[in-house]
Amino acid sequence: MILRIDRHQMELPPPSTPDPAGAAVVQELMGGKFGEMSTFMNYTFQSFNFRLRQGARPFYDLVANIAAEEFGHIELVATTINTMLTGAGEKGDLPKPADMLNPQQFIAGGAAALCQDSNGKPWNGDYITSTGDLVEDLVHNFFLETGARNNKLKVYEMCDHPAARALTGYLLVRGGVHQVAYARAVERLTGADLMKLFPSPRIPTDKIPESKPHLEAGLHTKLYRFSPSDYQEVAAVFNGPHPETGDELVVEDQPPEGFPPFDLPAQEGVFAPDYAPEEISEIARKLRVAAGLPDEPTGVVANNGSGNGSVVDKVKDAVS
Amino acid sequence: MILRIDRHQMELPPPSTPDPAGAAVVQELMGGKFGEMSTFMNYTFQSFNFRLRQGARPFYDLVANIAAEEFGHIELVATTINTMLTGAGEKGDLPKPADMLNPQQFIAGGAAALCQDSNGKPWNGDYITSTGDLVEDLVHNFFLETGARNNKLKVYEMCDHPAARALTGYLLVRGGVHQVAYARAVERLTGADLMKLFPSPRIPTDKIPESKPHLEAGLHTKLYRFSPSDYQEVAAVFNGPHPETGDELVVEDQPPEGFPPFDLPAQEGVFAPDYAPEEISEIARKLRVAAGLPDEPTGVVANNGSGNGSVVDKVKDAVS
Amino acid sequence: MILRIDRHQMELPPPSTPDPAGAAVVQELMGGKFGEMSTFMNYTFQSFNFRLRQGARPFYDLVANIAAEEFGHIELVATTINTMLTGAGEKGDLPKPADMLNPQQFIAGGAAALCQDSNGKPWNGDYITSTGDLVEDLVHNFFLETGARNNKLKVYEMCDHPAARALTGYLLVRGGVHQVAYARAVERLTGADLMKLFPSPRIPTDKIPESKPHLEAGLHTKLYRFSPSDYQEVAAVFNGPHPETGDELVVEDQPPEGFPPFDLPAQEGVFAPDYAPEEISEIARKLRVAAGLPDEPTGVVANNGSGNGSVVDKVKDAVS
Amino acid sequence: MILRIDRHQMELPPPSTPDPAGAAVVQELMGGKFGEMSTFMNYTFQSFNFRLRQGARPFYDLVANIAAEEFGHIELVATTINTMLTGAGEKGDLPKPADMLNPQQFIAGGAAALCQDSNGKPWNGDYITSTGDLVEDLVHNFFLETGARNNKLKVYEMCDHPAARALTGYLLVRGGVHQVAYARAVERLTGADLMKLFPSPRIPTDKIPESKPHLEAGLHTKLYRFSPSDYQEVAAVFNGPHPETGDELVVEDQPPEGFPPFDLPAQEGVFAPDYAPEEISEIARKLRVAAGLPDEPTGVVANNGSGNGSVVDKVKDAVS
Amino acid sequence: MILRIDRHQMELPPPSTPDPAGAAVVQELMGGKFGEMSTFMNYTFQSFNFRLRQGARPFYDLVANIAAEEFGHIELVATTINTMLTGAGEKGDLPKPADMLNPQQFIAGGAAALCQDSNGKPWNGDYITSTGDLVEDLVHNFFLETGARNNKLKVYEMCDHPAARALTGYLLVRGGVHQVAYARAVERLTGADLMKLFPSPRIPTDKIPESKPHLEAGLHTKLYRFSPSDYQEVAAVFNGPHPETGDELVVEDQPPEGFPPFDLPAQEGVFAPDYAPEEISEIARKLRVAAGLPDEPTGVVANNGSGNGSVVDKVKDAVS
Amino acid sequence: MILRIDRHQMELPPPSTPDPAGAAVVQELMGGKFGEMSTFMNYTFQSFNFRLRQGARPFYDLVANIAAEEFGHIELVATTINTMLTGAGEKGDLPKPADMLNPQQFIAGGAAALCQDSNGKPWNGDYITSTGDLVEDLVHNFFLETGARNNKLKVYEMCDHPAARALTGYLLVRGGVHQVAYARAVERLTGADLMKLFPSPRIPTDKIPESKPHLEAGLHTKLYRFSPSDYQEVAAVFNGPHPETGDELVVEDQPPEGFPPFDLPAQEGVFAPDYAPEEISEIARKLRVAAGLPDEPTGVVANNGSGNGSVVDKVKDAVS
Repeated sequence: MILRIDRHQMELPPPSTPDPAGAAVVQELMGGKFGEMSTFMNYTFQSFNFRLRQGARPFYDLVANIAAEEFGHIELVATTINTMLTGAGEKGDLPKPADMLNPQQFIAGGAAALCQDSNGKPWNGDYITSTGDLVEDLVHNFFLETGARNNKLKVYEMCDHPAARALTGYLLVRGGVHQVAYARAVERLTGADLMKLFPSPRIPTDKIPESKPHLEAGLHTKLYRFSPSDYQEVAAVFNGPHPETGDELVVEDQPPEGFPPFDLPAQEGVFAPDYAPEEISEIARKLRVAAGLPDEPTGVVANNGSGNGSVVDKVKDAVS
Repeated sequence: MILRIDRHQMELPPPSTPDPAGAAVVQELMGGKFGEMSTFMNYTFQSFNFRLRQGARPFYDLVANIAAEEFGHIELVATTINTMLTGAGEKGDLPKPADMLNPQQFIAGGAAALCQDSNGKPWNGDYITSTGDLVEDLVHNFFLETGARNNKLKVYEMCDHPAARALTGYLLVRGGVHQVAYARAVERLTGADLMKLFPSPRIPTDKIPESKPHLEAGLHTKLYRFSPSDYQEVAAVFNGPHPETGDELVVEDQPPEGFPPFDLPAQEGVFAPDYAPEEISEIARKLRVAAGLPDEPTGVVANNGSGNGSVVDKVKDAVS
Repeated sequence: MILRIDRHQMELPPPSTPDPAGAAVVQELMGGKFGEMSTFMNYTFQSFNFRLRQGARPFYDLVANIAAEEFGHIELVATTINTMLTGAGEKGDLPKPADMLNPQQFIAGGAAALCQDSNGKPWNGDYITSTGDLVEDLVHNFFLETGARNNKLKVYEMCDHPAARALTGYLLVRGGVHQVAYARAVERLTGADLMKLFPSPRIPTDKIPESKPHLEAGLHTKLYRFSPSDYQEVAAVFNGPHPETGDELVVEDQPPEGFPPFDLPAQEGVFAPDYAPEEISEIARKLRVAAGLPDEPTGVVANNGSGNGSVVDKVKDAVS
Repeated sequence: MILRIDRHQMELPPPSTPDPAGAAVVQELMGGKFGEMSTFMNYTFQSFNFRLRQGARPFYDLVANIAAEEFGHIELVATTINTMLTGAGEKGDLPKPADMLNPQQFIAGGAAALCQDSNGKPWNGDYITSTGDLVEDLVHNFFLETGARNNKLKVYEMCDHPAARALTGYLLVRGGVHQVAYARAVERLTGADLMKLFPSPRIPTDKIPESKPHLEAGLHTKLYRFSPSDYQEVAAVFNGPHPETGDELVVEDQPPEGFPPFDLPAQEGVFAPDYAPEEISEIARKLRVAAGLPDEPTGVVANNGSGNGSVVDKVKDAVS
Repeated sequence: MILRIDRHQMELPPPSTPDPAGAAVVQELMGGKFGEMSTFMNYTFQSFNFRLRQGARPFYDLVANIAAEEFGHIELVATTINTMLTGAGEKGDLPKPADMLNPQQFIAGGAAALCQDSNGKPWNGDYITSTGDLVEDLVHNFFLETGARNNKLKVYEMCDHPAARALTGYLLVRGGVHQVAYARAVERLTGADLMKLFPSPRIPTDKIPESKPHLEAGLHTKLYRFSPSDYQEVAAVFNGPHPETGDELVVEDQPPEGFPPFDLPAQEGVFAPDYAPEEISEIARKLRVAAGLPDEPTGVVANNGSGNGSVVDKVKDAVS
Repeated sequence: MILRIDRHQMELPPPSTPDPAGAAVVQELMGGKFGEMSTFMNYTFQSFNFRLRQGARPFYDLVANIAAEEFGHIELVATTINTMLTGAGEKGDLPKPADMLNPQQFIAGGAAALCQDSNGKPWNGDYITSTGDLVEDLVHNFFLETGARNNKLKVYEMCDHPAARALTGYLLVRGGVHQVAYARAVERLTGADLMKLFPSPRIPTDKIPESKPHLEAGLHTKLYRFSPSDYQEVAAVFNGPHPETGDELVVEDQPPEGFPPFDLPAQEGVFAPDYAPEEISEIARKLRVAAGLPDEPTGVVANNGSGNGSVVDKVKDAVS
């Protein structure tokens, strides 16, 4: 089972100019064959289906633990898309059909992320490979991370919205760590040296400005343990030098500290969360009080309040 | 983000007689339109896409928190399928084509769960409804739980394998809690009384022997908070009397204690985790020692060891 | 728009021995590429999208009118499947997983037809060809009916349940009429003689016992006009001799008289329409009376009553 | 079975400026999860699969009868799309790739509607929920209409083409009636008060100019009986006050009078119905005469003639 | 089995101005229901599944041999798309989201063709009809070629890029030959005269400038035998006069001579074949030498060299 | 383009006892994610989309040439399925629904192979990975072959029909060669030593009796050049010692000699190629003579004649 922590693994920028076409392209990182739904679900199912866990404990722990980090990645991709769409769902101001690539972000969603790829095709369970054969699954995972890195690099190039850039800059670093982890696991089991493939694709992350701060913070060498008690044997696999930088690989015995998310403003034009959201807020306040909770919301968010005024004001609030 | 705890929310029985056809039917609870992938992903995406979280905090907290519990449910369904298939993937002893409904459990998987429904169709992102309109999403969720309950009742009837029965007996109780939670949320926002629909479908859970112990433990009235720090405002929605029993609804400020999973034995006939798994175990042991970890696996499982002997022995081990 | 008449175009037998595996095969005639959903939806979309209707009126009328008959065909296929499944959804008596081909008929449905093919794949809009080019669409329709005839012949051979046999015996005759109609239309427009292809596939319908009564009643030469007022110009296309028998083709200026459907009994084991259906009946009766309607149901069905007793009794009722 | 009447349930405007991108967005109302194919097919399959019809007659009649109205809705959506595309399929004047969202409307279709959603994904049978459990199916239908209303409101906002606006203005009113009908049915069976959810989403229809005339004509309180003889017990369910206006709900014992459709002009650039349509018209005329029918087409359409001249002329003809 | 010859069946123009939106539309000819994947795979599977080959040899040979030509067609469509995208994948110069229709051509591919249709939906095996009934399959194939011709005509109209025009001009001629071949086969078996349907759709190919040279070279009357030794009995079917021109149909006992393909330049912006392709070239050279092969590449291409300079230079190279 | 040779790459056994359920399982090797359609189409599209072919010639040649061999593999899988189904499509003797896993093999096909996987899901273009990045594509291909090998091993275990065993015994050897080829290519480009992964999965092929003769013939070390003139630079990559046996890898400068296929007998019960196939044979004979071809069929097949007698006779013919 899981515990959920209402923090992001990285700090995403607040909403700025809406970019519906760009947000449609970022969908590839959510629901594409090499998107984060795929990494999350591949490792999750592999961990569920893992036989002989005790016997193969370091490998089970590795797969199960990386699965946990990937949940945080689908969260980040969704938030990025939502951020890029904020302002495009304002009352009376929806984008024109000719200016969008994915109309369902507005019709099926409330100016929001979908579980689809950049061509509007839903993610599906066929994107999961979970053969049960440990070496095969690990080689697969290495390749999956390689494909994911390829896709992120391209989305980085195609989308210049600050949220898309921040997202891909971060995910490239974390995906790189997972590539290394799976390469190392394959090496431990077979002796095959996948480390020589790095970086793959052959663009060093330090060329990406948005990756830089994360590299400087050493995030490219750290595998976080996303569990209060379990998956301790990741350290039996994830060690030795990083194939690109030579820095020692490190297991961090806890998750990253995390950042409170921006509370993205209502988009009344698409009824999210309502055509007249202030009524909901008032009901919420009353319920809170009736239940003996504080008058003010107890959640921690990055911005101050989430007023229902104009977009400009909302964004200003968001960035202040 | 999430933390992962290597425990199950309930105690599933160890492997016994393999039941490939039954395991194919249980897939509906994994990848069907009303399966646990659907509940997990619907609430997860709704929480990612939730706008005006501060303003609507009790409702955001409710959806985000139930999403977390649902991860534990896909874990249980996968484990049930894997348990039902254990023994059917033995060397030289795979089931004959005419005796199975879902050959991919053995060809694509290692005698293991797939992200598919009972007709072998992959789950897909189209099963997610996340409109952003709060009332609409909550009504949807209530209905989704109703459909899920319907499916569980039928799988219970069709499958007499102990693991399938134990699973459905438990999930019916927990799904009932979620039905109540969403009904209450709708009532809070609109005054509409969905409570009169209970139970829906109209079979009281207390008629199900495998549900009984959970009812007696009061699990039908408890909403666990699956977070060390967040989602505190679920208590603002989830309170008052249970529509069927009249018992007071309770928010438990932590997850259930959990049960260590059985370590399901290797199935060499499908190379899970290998054709000769003992080699992996030996490599694992060496890695552990080299990394300064104990000689013995550090994981906690329900059975003693996971030897690579005959199925019968393995199961005996498992149940001892 | 349409008016609906609660009659079947043919008389289907009452439920007898349930045949879940057979019912899964009959699904091909519902949701297969050449099933009745395809014929219904192809002609319906072609009629919606028809340009220059006045100029090409006889052809528009033909396509639009045959579309209307096809609705009756999906109704018949659904009823056949439901008939074959009746008795298999009794309380405590659902079929075992190993004895079925399509578990969703019981889990997603209530021992009922699905919008799927015989492999459990949902019908989809890609099966529609509606190019707007009249000659092309008509050639397509001729071919579609040919494929449909092929499929019906095979289902006839594979399924010996009386309902499946009665259904296919009838649909072969009516499908043959549509083949002739589209062949004639193509001939009228281009001179191409598709009549020489008959029968296609090359099995004369009069070899099929279940087709015989319909042939003797002349149904192979009649095109019914399924409209109180419109589609009068079908007669401009559908005339001349039948390519196999030489009989004159006839436009019947009204629909067939129709047969009241059997009221298929409740299947409480799958909650259809409820776990305890007699409560619904009582509510229904009260509502009727309160609204000034008769105490007894006003519907016309083929059987006497629809008691909630044992299957055997129900079927006895049904056939009496 | 059905009878077909060649009239529309409402009056759609004639073609004006073509709007291919907008027409791609309107596809959501055809083939989206909450589109009219879904409402039509959900209720149709539920009626086919309905067990114990006599016992539950008022509910059977309700579902079966609304299904019939929905056929008229897919007809209206298709016509709207075809209207929006008229003029865009002229010889030598097809839209450029960069100006469209759904190229298949021109390549697979003849400047015409497809059985797809706004992302170009085909509708599929998985969008049907037909569980056989009456209460569950009715709750589902209420929710389906809610989602449909949400989608229509958004398409209304995104598309300013007069045909899209007229369509959504009308469908919102009729969809509202169906929401009320299913809410009432649920209330009758369980006592649960779904009426308090209205309107859902929370935008009163009377704010929509294109809905106004229909409201003034009382269409929001009327359930038409789409059958010459059957479904009389809808009146046992559909009665009492309208939840928003308090007006008495009324069962109209016949379908709406209907409006003759515009005969949309040929689009020779996409060969609909031909590259040189006048030849088809001439053949049609001869066939009519040979069959003893009038020289002039017998169909009733909203415009005078359907000449094969320039677009501008055709539209002028259409509106005159 | 097959032998592969690294030549194109026709001469495609070199890259010029990139046209991403147009390239997305051309995808219909690759992965659409009536695209070249469909013709290739339909005939291939029909030939694999052909029973009684000796008895029905002329027909087997016809289908198997045309299948071989179709491989060349998917090759041409892919090359056309790749040509249209060349220059759009340059470092730092990818197209903006709002200027494309199919982002996956850049994200999943390297500015390259996908196995999808113009709406971004993957081709699937459901597009294959292989019933085993010879007459039915041949009628199907005639219709498939008709639909393919319709689609090519429309893509011709919608896309003015020289590569798209050259491609469709050629494929229309070759598709026409296949229409004739299948029509003749049906006539031989049944006497039905499909020849009267020509041309279908009714646009004579000689109106298309890009088809002209191929007509003048007599390609509309020739069926090539794509085998060194087999399929000799195509001549038993493919003979007599061409339905449009009256020219005698001819079996050419060998494939067309073929044209060396352009070596399309690297697109470093999408890492195709690498971010720094010159390193690959150097490795390749060394491998060649080490294996005793010439220092220079042995392949035959239409252009001189494939330098890694600017797009403009590359294209200049290409056309020089 | 390609030339087609009507020979199989290996010798498959003649039909024997029909095995419909087994034939459904073998479909995984046709249309599964790791089936032969996937290997064929992955390499084909990668070769079509290959940029800088001259610069990277040895790698282009390798991928393009292996693609050609894979066509022969889909041919073998189809033939195996057709062989296993022969006899099951006899008049009046089709298998019962409860005895099959894939009814469409009989309804959509004529007791024949489909483009589907073992769960009856059509193959689709999403199974193609063609990124354009050379290293990534080659790593992918290595992994794809690994997954394919896994699937073949399992199908070998599950299916004991002689045709299934012969097929998998052969494909395992050839797939092993492709694994080696791609591993070597990756090593040449990056130095990464994938050879240490062999065999993967870890079952040496020489344990498989049906693989033995092929190993003894040295097929595990040979890469055939499937082209009369091209792809000569495969030799620059495919050389050095085999990772398991140490034997020198060899490029054979021509395709394997090949084996004439069995002419599988008609199956009149599914109209393949007709309900009365002798008529087709007679027409064929006349056409041959009229075209100046021999009276007897010119094709080369493994059996003598293909009479239309009883199954037993046909099989006797086939094996004689």
